[in-house]
Amino acid sequence: MTKPSLAPPSGSRDFLPQEALFRERVFATVKSVFTAHGYAPFETPAFERLETLSGKYGEEGEKLIFKILKRGEKAATGEADLALRYDLTVPAMRLYAHRRNDLPRVVRRYQIGPVWRADRPGRGRFREFYQCDVDVFGSASPLADVDVLLALSRVLEVLGLKGFTIRLNSRQALRGLMSACGVPPVKHQAALIALDKYDKIGVDGVSAELRASDLPQRATKSLLNDLKSNNPEAALRARIESDDEGKAGLLAADNIASRVAPLLQGGMIRVDPILARGLDYYTGPIFEFIADDGADSIAGGGRYDDLASLFMKESVPVCGGSLGIERIIMLLQDQVGFEPAVGAVCYVTVWDEVDQGDALQLVAALRAEGVSAEVDLAGGKLSRQLKVADERGCRVVIVQGPDEKAAGEVTIKEMESGNQRRATKANAPSVVKELIK
Amino acid sequence: MTKPSLAPPSGSRDFLPQEALFRERVFATVKSVFTAHGYAPFETPAFERLETLSGKYGEEGEKLIFKILKRGEKAATGEADLALRYDLTVPAMRLYAHRRNDLPRVVRRYQIGPVWRADRPGRGRFREFYQCDVDVFGSASPLADVDVLLALSRVLEVLGLKGFTIRLNSRQALRGLMSACGVPPVKHQAALIALDKYDKIGVDGVSAELRASDLPQRATKSLLNDLKSNNPEAALRARIESDDEGKAGLLAADNIASRVAPLLQGGMIRVDPILARGLDYYTGPIFEFIADDGADSIAGGGRYDDLASLFMKESVPVCGGSLGIERIIMLLQDQVGFEPAVGAVCYVTVWDEVDQGDALQLVAALRAEGVSAEVDLAGGKLSRQLKVADERGCRVVIVQGPDEKAAGEVTIKEMESGNQRRATKANAPSVVKELIK
Repeated sequence: MTKPSLAPPSGSRDFLPQEALFRERVFATVKSVFTAHGYAPFETPAFERLETLSGKYGEEGEKLIFKILKRGEKAATGEADLALRYDLTVPAMRLYAHRRNDLPRVVRRYQIGPVWRADRPGRGRFREFYQCDVDVFGSASPLADVDVLLALSRVLEVLGLKGFTIRLNSRQALRGLMSACGVPPVKHQAALIALDKYDKIGVDGVSAELRASDLPQRATKSLLNDLKSNNPEAALRARIESDDEGKAGLLAADNIASRVAPLLQGGMIRVDPILARGLDYYTGPIFEFIADDGADSIAGGGRYDDLASLFMKESVPVCGGSLGIERIIMLLQDQVGFEPAVGAVCYVTVWDEVDQGDALQLVAALRAEGVSAEVDLAGGKLSRQLKVADERGCRVVIVQGPDEKAAGEVTIKEMESGNQRRATKANAPSVVKELIK
Repeated sequence: MTKPSLAPPSGSRDFLPQEALFRERVFATVKSVFTAHGYAPFETPAFERLETLSGKYGEEGEKLIFKILKRGEKAATGEADLALRYDLTVPAMRLYAHRRNDLPRVVRRYQIGPVWRADRPGRGRFREFYQCDVDVFGSASPLADVDVLLALSRVLEVLGLKGFTIRLNSRQALRGLMSACGVPPVKHQAALIALDKYDKIGVDGVSAELRASDLPQRATKSLLNDLKSNNPEAALRARIESDDEGKAGLLAADNIASRVAPLLQGGMIRVDPILARGLDYYTGPIFEFIADDGADSIAGGGRYDDLASLFMKESVPVCGGSLGIERIIMLLQDQVGFEPAVGAVCYVTVWDEVDQGDALQLVAALRAEGVSAEVDLAGGKLSRQLKVADERGCRVVIVQGPDEKAAGEVTIKEMESGNQRRATKANAPSVVKELIK
């Protein structure tokens, strides 16, 4: 029998300390920004009842759900009753519907955690990946949309991501555009998906896609005329404003943009009348964040006032957004690189067995001063212990050999410079604290 | 068709903000202590290949593994290829074996995360629950066992848990006891499980269990004699020391205890020669933490130098321990209670639509001062907005009505006392910052 593979299952990842610490730091930053904006955490289980997830993600999404086999005697049926969550939105909606009597009328919620999709793995596409969501339940005010946009923007600014653009639009504006051009409702989806690719495939690409999707000739012509004009945005806006619903939708987007723009510190916002976004459940404003560096979509969201009705009788106004945190982490790693240290700041060597107690006391004294410290566990000669301290990225090493011992002192060595100094045992913690400041 | 149940699946839990924040704070404390002790995070996926987990947890454990159905066309076979992790130890061992060339020779690792077991749910027993593990890979030194005990102890001390006792023993001492009493190897497990219950069921209970497990008469008699003597511990120690392996095992435990004892600040440690612990994979020192308040086991672990051989050719010395963090959280909730606030510290009301921009500017200025702040999203009259601020546990509310506006000021209201004061808009952030100090 061959030993089982030691790699993590396809599409999932292990993280060794360096990368795990980097990710942890990113998640901690996200949390602190969300908290500073008045968002509070929801936590839901990794799995849901299968029927909670079924019928929420379209035909393609449905195939990607990881299903969990029944237990005990029922395992033999090969049937599933549970499934790993596919996103954080549907479970949060279930939780909100379940516990709404325990919640204030306006809920700002965040959640950071893994979701699972049985997608074909590829660069930047995983079967287990993290999402970072914020949502506002119970407010129909455009200030709620503004609130979500500001919280997401602030995360990117605090993380130090170099520049981003928020594209903002609304479903009403898109419907207005479609009616103004005479696209019949059954063709809206196809036409919008084609338009949404304009930034990537240009007017010729969009033209090919529109022709392939068999729209009325007038519709295709109108759309392409606008895109080919000197100022496509102005042309599209004029056309949308010729429709009442479209005009109202644009106004709503403009209003939100005007509130957000003056408060951005690391990005900009623009109303983009052809931004469509895939998911059908949006009902109002929709948005997408694009990193200036790489043109990647790094966040997205919008208002979805109808999703609640799948779980409860009342309809509840909800808007929210999700950071593409795996992509953001990749961009940050490219921009700022990893930081190496995985060990404690200060490494206390052990001369011989007799000195173990002394070494442990010193470690405790260092920690009491707020210095992270560890005692050598590798054993052997001093040179070996120093090598381990170096491998672990410790900045300072403390040695107490016979010389030092006779003088009641220790030697404090800075690993990077190689500088050494003596200090009394009692003073060593404050000397180290000073050195690493 | 009935709507699906809104409750989380059996044995799993949702957490609303209050409880989620409480748990987050506990996990953050655990992390900070582990980090201060030189431990660094490993992260592994929620699921593993089924064969990675199979054969690791005994017959009973095996039944509790959540299995994941194959995807796509293979779903119809009803077969599973993946499984949710059952603990954090086996995945960490797999990861260590997989990546040991990228790791220093001594690895202090921690991991905090959920595991899943299809156990019958009950009070304090869940199907999804968190574990907090520390392990030292690659050191056979007793200082590594000391290191693990100190890291776990320090977490309990920093969390403010009121008192605990570490029971320490070793597999060698237990084997010594068994041979000194003439218990044949096939009966070791049964005899040790009976002895391990001494604290709970007393000498009569142990007596009944020993008799039921059909030991040689001499063995039962020796063990009961020791337990019934004036000083059972001394009697057991004397018997163990009559066996060479037993004597060495006790000496090792005594040595560890003597290193740990002087460094404890909130608990005590004692060598307990009948502590057995269930899992078979331990090979050296073993331990268990008992909360003085409630006699619950709140942590446990030991040395398991043979587990590595299931994943790699070399044997690797490893010791580690796991906090019973769900039980610890329950004890802390009983002792210290919940803290309520889920909203931001400062709530900025909105008088009317014209004031939205002003309100958003003020919120941004508050955050720039480090004050968590949120803008009203509920709308409506001031009284309604104040009610929402109250529901959300906000400490300070800012109002800018027509009077204030005319004077270029705002009113700052402290919710608990009801005290109000005026401040200029520019000064408001620093006034609030001062108030909440």
